[in-house]
Amino acid sequence: MNDLKIIKIGGKVVEDDSRLTSFLENFARISSLKMLVHGGGKWVSEMSQRLGIEVKMIDGRRITDAETMEVVKMMLAGVANKNIVSKLQAFRCNALGMTGADGNTIQAMKRPVMNGIDYGFVGDVKTVNNTALVQVIGNGFVPVFASLTHDGCGTMLNTNADTIASSLALGLICSYNVELIYCFELNGVLRDIHDPESIIPLINKKNYQELKDEKIISEGMIPKIDNAFNAIRNGVKSVRIMNSTHIDRYANGDTSVGTVISM
Amino acid sequence: MNDLKIIKIGGKVVEDDSRLTSFLENFARISSLKMLVHGGGKWVSEMSQRLGIEVKMIDGRRITDAETMEVVKMMLAGVANKNIVSKLQAFRCNALGMTGADGNTIQAMKRPVMNGIDYGFVGDVKTVNNTALVQVIGNGFVPVFASLTHDGCGTMLNTNADTIASSLALGLICSYNVELIYCFELNGVLRDIHDPESIIPLINKKNYQELKDEKIISEGMIPKIDNAFNAIRNGVKSVRIMNSTHIDRYANGDTSVGTVISM
Repeated sequence: MNDLKIIKIGGKVVEDDSRLTSFLENFARISSLKMLVHGGGKWVSEMSQRLGIEVKMIDGRRITDAETMEVVKMMLAGVANKNIVSKLQAFRCNALGMTGADGNTIQAMKRPVMNGIDYGFVGDVKTVNNTALVQVIGNGFVPVFASLTHDGCGTMLNTNADTIASSLALGLICSYNVELIYCFELNGVLRDIHDPESIIPLINKKNYQELKDEKIISEGMIPKIDNAFNAIRNGVKSVRIMNSTHIDRYANGDTSVGTVISM
Repeated sequence: MNDLKIIKIGGKVVEDDSRLTSFLENFARISSLKMLVHGGGKWVSEMSQRLGIEVKMIDGRRITDAETMEVVKMMLAGVANKNIVSKLQAFRCNALGMTGADGNTIQAMKRPVMNGIDYGFVGDVKTVNNTALVQVIGNGFVPVFASLTHDGCGTMLNTNADTIASSLALGLICSYNVELIYCFELNGVLRDIHDPESIIPLINKKNYQELKDEKIISEGMIPKIDNAFNAIRNGVKSVRIMNSTHIDRYANGDTSVGTVISM
């Protein structure tokens, strides 16, 4: 099986033009098969405000009412996705922009009202269409996913980009050796949050318990790592958490970049 | 060679939800290979106004400055395209939304300043990527094109949807028997503009000259028909001009719908 890298970038990379260009120039150089998943939440909030649509968040999760959903389509599937695709084409990377509706690649279920909270047009991933993605990748295209899915009945749904990345990874494990890479603003999982160089290079089952017992891993990081272990238990080869600005080292084959989580 | 129908719909279909749904339900039933090209200019104008961006047109052509280009991405590649793709998926048509940047399918050149008019980020089509489109269609996807292209150097360009449709048609004549279909609000080319039933069923080289000599074809229609003949001379099998609401008859195999232009 071929290697496939699925890389997720957040809004901080997407929304800063020079940072995005530099990231994409390096992403284009990664020699294995690859996919990109992007968010762009700040743009959604900014455009909502500009249009006089109230931004509602509960525990960091966006309430996506009908009007906000239009803005999500506009800013993520429209602006962010096409900026990324056209830039990647300039770097001779044959990007193909997608949402879960395109090629029916990711179907989701509208999240039911829970504990009185109606998240609106938010989708929880139900199925990933392995066949369609293997065809697209096999054609030599590099899929670039905006974090939207559809319900199969004509409605687009807003879906967390981290979840899209891990769902795509799990949906493709039968066809590729998948490495899932989360790019964020820190250098990896740090021993000391104040020391950017204190990267823990490898977390496996054995040292994870020790790191938790010694309270070296901060509370906010625990759900991320639990999710990573969940992906690995289900067949993803490894999960990497790294700084998006280190993509140049990664593209050059430096496998020591960031924190790798594996069995 | 297989038949391929390339159908272009304008903003009037795209921007009216129930009209769009009904159109797409019938489009989904067309049994041959097919593609859809859509505009959505009114939405671009409306959103521009909502955002306080001046709408500038010269002879019906939009001046697409940098701010307007963002709105074009938002409304065409974002809202219109994803509405169409998700609805088609609901009708079990495996739509894949695209712009010319996706898969490098349509490269264009930024229109140079002519006679002192700077159209801004407007692209004139340079090349259509036959290989990429044949792959996508061969995979069983139905491409749905928003009327945007790219320059290959990282910039998206606004491009006339009629031109995208005819460029795609000409780019695919080596691989398919292409029929190019322009859907609009009239029943076809009419003998009498006030009589919707006075459709001229067939225009060929022979009767075209007669129809022009007798001034039966109106001036506004002449450039459309000239363009159609240009497509045919270059290898497109036929061009059809029809009412978008007659797509149900067309999907049922009624080949007498609208006006057919052929050799």
